[in-house]
Amino acid sequence: MNVSPQHSPEPAAAADIPASAPGTRLDPWLSHYAERTYGMKASEIRALFAVANRPEVVSLAGGMPFLAGLPLETISEVTAKLLSERGAVALQYGSGQGEESFREQILEVMREEHIRAHADDVIVTTGSQQALDLVTRIFVDPGDVVVAEAPSYVGALGVFRSYQADVVHVPMDANGLVPEALEHTLSELAAEGRTVKLLYTVPNFHNPGGVTLSAERRPQIVEIAQRYGVLILEDNPYGLLGFDSDPLPALHTYDPDGVIYLGSFSKTFAPGYRVGWAVAPHAVRERLVLAAESAILCPSMMSQMSISTYLATCDWRGQVKEFREVYRERRDAMVSALAEYLPMASWTNPAGGFYTWVRLPEGLDAQDMLPRAVTELVAYVPGTAFYADDQGKQFMRLSYCYPTAERIREGVRRLAGVVTSELELVQMFGTSGTTGGRGVHAPAPDQN
Amino acid sequence: MNVSPQHSPEPAAAADIPASAPGTRLDPWLSHYAERTYGMKASEIRALFAVANRPEVVSLAGGMPFLAGLPLETISEVTAKLLSERGAVALQYGSGQGEESFREQILEVMREEHIRAHADDVIVTTGSQQALDLVTRIFVDPGDVVVAEAPSYVGALGVFRSYQADVVHVPMDANGLVPEALEHTLSELAAEGRTVKLLYTVPNFHNPGGVTLSAERRPQIVEIAQRYGVLILEDNPYGLLGFDSDPLPALHTYDPDGVIYLGSFSKTFAPGYRVGWAVAPHAVRERLVLAAESAILCPSMMSQMSISTYLATCDWRGQVKEFREVYRERRDAMVSALAEYLPMASWTNPAGGFYTWVRLPEGLDAQDMLPRAVTELVAYVPGTAFYADDQGKQFMRLSYCYPTAERIREGVRRLAGVVTSELELVQMFGTSGTTGGRGVHAPAPDQN
Repeated sequence: MNVSPQHSPEPAAAADIPASAPGTRLDPWLSHYAERTYGMKASEIRALFAVANRPEVVSLAGGMPFLAGLPLETISEVTAKLLSERGAVALQYGSGQGEESFREQILEVMREEHIRAHADDVIVTTGSQQALDLVTRIFVDPGDVVVAEAPSYVGALGVFRSYQADVVHVPMDANGLVPEALEHTLSELAAEGRTVKLLYTVPNFHNPGGVTLSAERRPQIVEIAQRYGVLILEDNPYGLLGFDSDPLPALHTYDPDGVIYLGSFSKTFAPGYRVGWAVAPHAVRERLVLAAESAILCPSMMSQMSISTYLATCDWRGQVKEFREVYRERRDAMVSALAEYLPMASWTNPAGGFYTWVRLPEGLDAQDMLPRAVTELVAYVPGTAFYADDQGKQFMRLSYCYPTAERIREGVRRLAGVVTSELELVQMFGTSGTTGGRGVHAPAPDQN
Repeated sequence: MNVSPQHSPEPAAAADIPASAPGTRLDPWLSHYAERTYGMKASEIRALFAVANRPEVVSLAGGMPFLAGLPLETISEVTAKLLSERGAVALQYGSGQGEESFREQILEVMREEHIRAHADDVIVTTGSQQALDLVTRIFVDPGDVVVAEAPSYVGALGVFRSYQADVVHVPMDANGLVPEALEHTLSELAAEGRTVKLLYTVPNFHNPGGVTLSAERRPQIVEIAQRYGVLILEDNPYGLLGFDSDPLPALHTYDPDGVIYLGSFSKTFAPGYRVGWAVAPHAVRERLVLAAESAILCPSMMSQMSISTYLATCDWRGQVKEFREVYRERRDAMVSALAEYLPMASWTNPAGGFYTWVRLPEGLDAQDMLPRAVTELVAYVPGTAFYADDQGKQFMRLSYCYPTAERIREGVRRLAGVVTSELELVQMFGTSGTTGGRGVHAPAPDQN
């Protein structure tokens, strides 16, 4: 049976499977795998996701962007023109780094966030996930440390694990990564003689934390990383999807030689093309291109030229603005439903992006609760997926990007029913003893 | 300056660069790279390729398929329909393994070569290059041995090197990989206590060798690999492009549990979508999907659905037949031009695919000769690119897939001029002492 989630926007979440996973016992090549392969783990919530994709389930789990708002007729027309006029180029191999004219357009997109770079230092990748993979590939030896926020993006944790990195988490608060905590962690790691290769961070509308690194902390974080000689890996898929104000300066703007910046068209246009990019210091970019050529030869010309045509002929800025409005409305629906139905929990109030991070009442375990939630026709991602260690039990990530406002309300209502019955059990039989762990300390609900 | 080759169909070829490569000296992160990164090498022929892509140069170097024959108007129409009718699905995230209905169509394509598999055991990749990368990722630890033909595909050698494998070459002759030589090598490696993880082979219309593994040798190769417990990685991008007869049975047909089979749409349809696939034993496929999700989340839905639509609505079998005719005509132009202009060399006479492998007269070095050839407006890939060791100096790969028959003749004529002057130099000053190495022992020209 194929239990792969259809339309899964993220790789398998980070929960362990027992060694007796289906099929493994019969694997004639079991003794032949590379050591790194034993760190690649299927998710125990995978099977549940297959169920969660049934239409009767309200999925607050996925990170699929809302695409129904795209001008599909226009995209269809310009793509048809592209193929009939330049099809022999669009369907051919391209350069490993990506097309130069397209990289120029990427600079334009980044200028919306005041990021300055040169087209030579941009490399087009198969989604920004591939950029994560390539950066890790060229920098991380087994046993090296990657410092990441607590919690952190599940797909990045999967990459770090697959290169046998040790992820060390640093706490966030409502203003993002805490500089003092970062300094403390880096100083401890230095004292232990550990090699820290990367600081991985999602400064804007954090996935899953739902918080944004404040303006005053940005230069502080960069300064600390510089002082400890740690390269920053700045992952910014949601930067243009802020609801309230103009984007804050990227970490890259403070130190282009000390930051590798990752961008993506998956959230501002469409993930189906699989196009993202990295901006890297020049010498690093050369290595990234070599690694990319080894991994895929070159990114899809058809994807690059399709997006290039869209950027050149459609009002992409207007479209991003429309997306922002849709997601703002859904964020509003999410937080008001949480306040109404789940006052016993707390959560972050995201100023952009796709996700809120919810802390359950003491004694509840989001992972244990998931099967019951799915039975009640609502799905989410348990917090444990977003930690490289065993933190996060008391948390869950709720996404508001895909379902309508009405469905979001209904989903939270169902969730509240599950939480209430779980709480009754806890009150009857005592707490399970799990108490969350480090993570985003969400403001109390009345602050939302 | 950007010296990446435009439309390069292959990653950087395998020649070393000195440590003082441009930019490297100024790299502030030089001490931070992973160990594997030092094995990723830029090609010294890269800069030449930038020149070789000028229109006045006849490039017999690239592996770009001939796309002008594609029905671009029809492709344009069906793609427009796809986007306007199913755009919200085509532009969304998909499953990590690839769409099930598309995997069913891949089974159909493989049935043309009598390969039997189940859709569950197919994984869609970003070109078959990504499949090479993922297979190597899950199996190869640093220091493990990969056995490969001599010569072997430059892109595969790059992948193996980037995972710090030791490639051990086994000779081919006009009938492909030599079973006795394989047995001898595996037995030696076993005696040395080496861990052999993969036998990498391109059985049909070898790149760059231009030879095909004979029917009688196929079960022998499989039996030897079985006996030594070595997994076969069968790379078959050209299988449907045979000029003379029906495809021979894939190695996969002899032992589906002992072979990972790689296919691609890049040569039979179009490389610009970057879609290939792997067929793997079930348990291995599970690992491959995890590795793929970590690397790119999922393959492009738009690419998959575009090719799916093409397969469903166009006469793709007729198109492959047309491609075959074009390439046959160009192969004929190539071998007759070689016979006319380069009787002092020898070469393989490919029964399909894109390439012939040419042995230069004693004393010539194809790599040394390349700058002069490019000055004379003809380009090729020197044989050294196709070996993990220092073999191949006397060889070159000539490709006939992209230029017209007339341009091929002109290119070989120019090449003959270069070879003739080089030979005069050698006769005046003595041979350079380089004598080729193991490799395809091409039949004498009169046999072609």
